[in-house]
Amino acid sequence: MARVRVKGIAFDMYGTVVDIWSVAEACKDVVPDPVIFTAQWRAKQLEYTFLRTLMGQYRDFWRVTEEALEFTIRRFAIQVSGTERQGLMEAWLRPTPYPEVPAALPRLKAKYRLAILSNGSPKMLRTGLQHTALSAHFQWVLSADAVRRYKPASQVYQLAPKHLRRPKREILFVSSNGFDAVGAKAFGLKVCWINRTGAPLDPLGPKPDLVVKSFDDLVASL
Amino acid sequence: MARVRVKGIAFDMYGTVVDIWSVAEACKDVVPDPVIFTAQWRAKQLEYTFLRTLMGQYRDFWRVTEEALEFTIRRFAIQVSGTERQGLMEAWLRPTPYPEVPAALPRLKAKYRLAILSNGSPKMLRTGLQHTALSAHFQWVLSADAVRRYKPASQVYQLAPKHLRRPKREILFVSSNGFDAVGAKAFGLKVCWINRTGAPLDPLGPKPDLVVKSFDDLVASL
Repeated sequence: MARVRVKGIAFDMYGTVVDIWSVAEACKDVVPDPVIFTAQWRAKQLEYTFLRTLMGQYRDFWRVTEEALEFTIRRFAIQVSGTERQGLMEAWLRPTPYPEVPAALPRLKAKYRLAILSNGSPKMLRTGLQHTALSAHFQWVLSADAVRRYKPASQVYQLAPKHLRRPKREILFVSSNGFDAVGAKAFGLKVCWINRTGAPLDPLGPKPDLVVKSFDDLVASL
Repeated sequence: MARVRVKGIAFDMYGTVVDIWSVAEACKDVVPDPVIFTAQWRAKQLEYTFLRTLMGQYRDFWRVTEEALEFTIRRFAIQVSGTERQGLMEAWLRPTPYPEVPAALPRLKAKYRLAILSNGSPKMLRTGLQHTALSAHFQWVLSADAVRRYKPASQVYQLAPKHLRRPKREILFVSSNGFDAVGAKAFGLKVCWINRTGAPLDPLGPKPDLVVKSFDDLVASL
């Protein structure tokens, strides 16, 4: 595994620092098959970020997540009350970190300056990081909302060199989302893809600098 | 159903004029579950058009389709020879029209000037239309390749008013792909969504002017 010399690290949030499958847990009393429901919800959430950026019709990630929920409820033709709907949405404000993350972040923080770089709206990120008690590790919490576009638009990744005040090649971007790793690499950041499931990489450009299975592997590689 | 006064009609190709499930037929001797395989292949094909446009890394639809096939083969961890791979790709050059399309197009052509407006590469569209014997119905075959971006980027839809030389509101765009109907409507074309399966509409903007179940319904509505 190639060693990467960097000055700062920017992390994707959903699916990378926190486990979006914790949302499925919140769905389990509301929908018949919470894993299939959450997978469709997440797929539509991402698709809508792509589509809204391509159409030039930005709405923030909270709204996009609501729209994706609306589609998913209709797609599965299930009855969901207003209160239940609110409960499903609020699961995004109380995400669960991957188990090794709380111990790994302080070790990374001892050597690098850390940031979040996420599609999440500022409120979602603020609330989610407070809930996970991880806020203190991050010097910057950068939201795509600042540029009213979503990943993998280059303007989102540009937030990292802009705020960290380092050239692209000195910033490591860490994501578990394959499209996000590919997008950041195409933009010019150093990239670590956390591939927990052994998924194939989308063959859309240069490969990530690092591919690891967990935050522990990332700590060991740096 | 609202009546729509238009001068020309532009049709999406894949999934609208021709049935992409005909590709599944070509997969049936090569992969264990051709319908699931084709669904993943198609989903990745579309995702890659979105991602490449967002990243500003255009490659033509043939190449994107090959990349999506590569991912899908790796995802399902199946063995596919070079010859078989070529056979799968060539299915996109020999698509099957939906059954009512060959009779409906001449009726529409008697009243409107018709165009194809597709993500497909010029070669894919030319070959596919020749194979279906539908070429003669279309005065224009407009490919996203001309603007090196994919739907729902506005530049692609702009090809219709540019070539048909009519204002947006006088052109009806017809697509079975929900995101495409939404994108064209956001751009400002009149839109007919052919919803063969009773799918929910993506709640991303103004609704289509017409929603029908088939080309026959479209003919009856105009």
